[in-house]
Amino acid sequence: MNAPTPSAHLAPAILSREVPQALIDALKARFNERCSTALVVREQHGRDESAFAPVPPPSAVVFAESTQDVADAVKLASQYSVPVIPFGIGSSLEGHLLAVQGGISIDVSRMNQVLSINAEDLTVTVQPGVTRKQVNEAVKSTGLFFPIDPGADATLGGMSATRASGTNAVRYGTMRENVLALQVVTAQGDIIRTGTRAKKSSAGYDLTRLMVGSEGTLGVITEVTVKLYPLPEAISAAICSFPSIEASVRTTIQIIQMGIPIARVELIDSNTVRMVNAYAKLGLKEAPLLLMEFHGSPASVKEQAELVQEIASEFGGMEFEWATTPEERTRLWTARHNAYFAAIQSKPGCRAISTDTCVPISRLADCLLDSVVEADASGIPYFLVGHVGDGNFHFGYLIDPDKPEERETAEQLNHALVARALRLEGTCTGEHGIGLHKMDFLLTETGEGAVDMMRTIKRALDPKNIMNPGKIFTL
Amino acid sequence: MNAPTPSAHLAPAILSREVPQALIDALKARFNERCSTALVVREQHGRDESAFAPVPPPSAVVFAESTQDVADAVKLASQYSVPVIPFGIGSSLEGHLLAVQGGISIDVSRMNQVLSINAEDLTVTVQPGVTRKQVNEAVKSTGLFFPIDPGADATLGGMSATRASGTNAVRYGTMRENVLALQVVTAQGDIIRTGTRAKKSSAGYDLTRLMVGSEGTLGVITEVTVKLYPLPEAISAAICSFPSIEASVRTTIQIIQMGIPIARVELIDSNTVRMVNAYAKLGLKEAPLLLMEFHGSPASVKEQAELVQEIASEFGGMEFEWATTPEERTRLWTARHNAYFAAIQSKPGCRAISTDTCVPISRLADCLLDSVVEADASGIPYFLVGHVGDGNFHFGYLIDPDKPEERETAEQLNHALVARALRLEGTCTGEHGIGLHKMDFLLTETGEGAVDMMRTIKRALDPKNIMNPGKIFTL
Repeated sequence: MNAPTPSAHLAPAILSREVPQALIDALKARFNERCSTALVVREQHGRDESAFAPVPPPSAVVFAESTQDVADAVKLASQYSVPVIPFGIGSSLEGHLLAVQGGISIDVSRMNQVLSINAEDLTVTVQPGVTRKQVNEAVKSTGLFFPIDPGADATLGGMSATRASGTNAVRYGTMRENVLALQVVTAQGDIIRTGTRAKKSSAGYDLTRLMVGSEGTLGVITEVTVKLYPLPEAISAAICSFPSIEASVRTTIQIIQMGIPIARVELIDSNTVRMVNAYAKLGLKEAPLLLMEFHGSPASVKEQAELVQEIASEFGGMEFEWATTPEERTRLWTARHNAYFAAIQSKPGCRAISTDTCVPISRLADCLLDSVVEADASGIPYFLVGHVGDGNFHFGYLIDPDKPEERETAEQLNHALVARALRLEGTCTGEHGIGLHKMDFLLTETGEGAVDMMRTIKRALDPKNIMNPGKIFTL
Repeated sequence: MNAPTPSAHLAPAILSREVPQALIDALKARFNERCSTALVVREQHGRDESAFAPVPPPSAVVFAESTQDVADAVKLASQYSVPVIPFGIGSSLEGHLLAVQGGISIDVSRMNQVLSINAEDLTVTVQPGVTRKQVNEAVKSTGLFFPIDPGADATLGGMSATRASGTNAVRYGTMRENVLALQVVTAQGDIIRTGTRAKKSSAGYDLTRLMVGSEGTLGVITEVTVKLYPLPEAISAAICSFPSIEASVRTTIQIIQMGIPIARVELIDSNTVRMVNAYAKLGLKEAPLLLMEFHGSPASVKEQAELVQEIASEFGGMEFEWATTPEERTRLWTARHNAYFAAIQSKPGCRAISTDTCVPISRLADCLLDSVVEADASGIPYFLVGHVGDGNFHFGYLIDPDKPEERETAEQLNHALVARALRLEGTCTGEHGIGLHKMDFLLTETGEGAVDMMRTIKRALDPKNIMNPGKIFTL
């Protein structure tokens, strides 16, 4: 298994197709002021949180307000064989939103209605522009919550499209496990439904899960039905510092292997603690720490916490600091969620190149520790956070976008890390998606045969190659 | 939404294609005595547990012993455009194994090696002919177990292909949630891998979940990697009788809505209790009962059981009878698993037409109770069991296969039940698959657009339509 050379990741291949004026005119006629060709709007829709150098923005942005709007926009684009890039809130880390083959952006952020809350079935159906915080606000009075938390307040459309997960996935699963049904606009502009609100089904091909993680390349998601969970009777969060990253990782591995149903177990390395302290005026001890959360009945939470404390202390973990009130918990999790922004702010003008490997839990220490050594040796500043209970972690290499040598070094580090993760039977991406950044890694990971099958599906469902083309694989 | 007429389900459409002698000769040359054309062998491979009238069996049966065997058999079949039907243990309930378009059967039951147990990662990789009991036997010493339990001791290949689930799914999920990775032989005879042993991934299209539930129509599964779980520290099983089916169902709904992490909650109606008592010489009270199991720490199991007892008593549930030793538990679950055979034996010579609807939990009573009234009024004897915690249940209408009017009545009951489940936002099949039996229901459930997308994928991946053709949908 040969990993590709890092240089392949430095700049996206641009293969811009012409967007005829006739299409723009038709979109303007259909959408009036909801079709914008203003440069500032187009530029805002032609970038994301990835570290790629800018590419020319889409030729127009359509602000969709309904499924029919999306269907009509796709039909017009299809008529002219012009690419369509769905846009939620712009929080992709992998270049998903870059118009590398030109085209138009369909912004679904105005499709932000919670359509139906079925509390008695533990499901909610929303439009794709609804964000995860908005879902939780909407269902608050029902005693239920939506656990998937990728950090950013991403939209459920975007989270579905990238098969997102985050801090709670160790207990509640990812979008893969939590999306029950979708409404999708196909490449032909048709509207289809996949799945039902039933908890399980064997009714034909699992189109829901084919769409989840397809990164906009097979259709535009226009409705999402997800599972909700009863708010735990008791929630308790704690941080625990460790003498080394290894000690924190070994603690995590044992928690998982023992089957303790921990709800969150997040690693934050000492670099990142320092950045977060500076950013949010916190006084966390500058050492590797695990940020944990326990959900359950009061007795179960107590039992889990005791077991975890016992394991942690075996590995030299310090005293637990507890946060039991919602306010204290929010403060801790805000610190975790701000890690990315804290890191960016620690090096003005920098961009972060984020890694996303995920390995079987027993391989976590092997995968992570060697990469820490390499990152330290490189001289590139970085942050390191991880959903370590799932074997998933992120280095964020902080590069000066104007210094190609920093980008090259960061990509080499990423390359070495991915190669290591694949040797350890892991994946190049636990939750961010392939986008533009990991197309070569995907080939290495899954092999030409599986990628060919993906290409065959793509060609069959989108013969004009208009749905977010140039992402995941080359055709 | 118009449900199709029941008569469509009475007999499978047969569209047999010629199997050239040259293919048989080539298979014999490649597989020697492992390619059988003996009628008794072919007939055994041309039927399953469904109630369909017999159709002509496959022209040959290849006993594969390796992935390469499967690949070679598929390549030869492809060369002659001849259908291929994978065969595990023959426990399909939906006609999946009937050679309705002729062809050859590939029996993978000799591919029954447990390839690697990765206890420290809670995963196991097996060949497709390994059965669920065999997995559990193999991992017993590790303190882990594989929870998916569809009743029959099915193979993991077959369970993957039908997206099976069963009694433990309410807590541990279905094959959808538990298959991590597959090896698959494609319609071209190529060998591909999907997924890795990492717990989560966003690496491209979710081919694993596209294959899971594809019923042999997209490829032959030749390796399966599934999740394992730590054996709970404490397990406790109980039965509780209720004054009515409604009371048992309302109890279940409340258990689920409260988020109690019950591991199993199975309904057995009084008909079935009577049949099971007769079959297994048990003395269970002839009333609707819930058979439940609780997994966790001793404290958690106690807590769950107390909550459930409280709910049950509100609905008139009688005293719990506990089974805490493994032997007592096995006795109870054997009773549950024998329900099908007990029912068949209660009417000599009968076949069971099994329903498989699954609805959102709040709709369970609405869906089930009216169907009980209809079944009682029909005069057809039946059994009723259900994975009610998931909103999934099975009527088994016991028909005399030689009496078309009984088959017609049973199909009318099934038809009314499916129509009701779909109105209640459920699915026609929770776990058995579409097969031959529910093709019209699938169309009604998901709509022409979604089925067209399935057909497009099928045509693209299997242009000669040789992989288990005639199942799930017509092309």
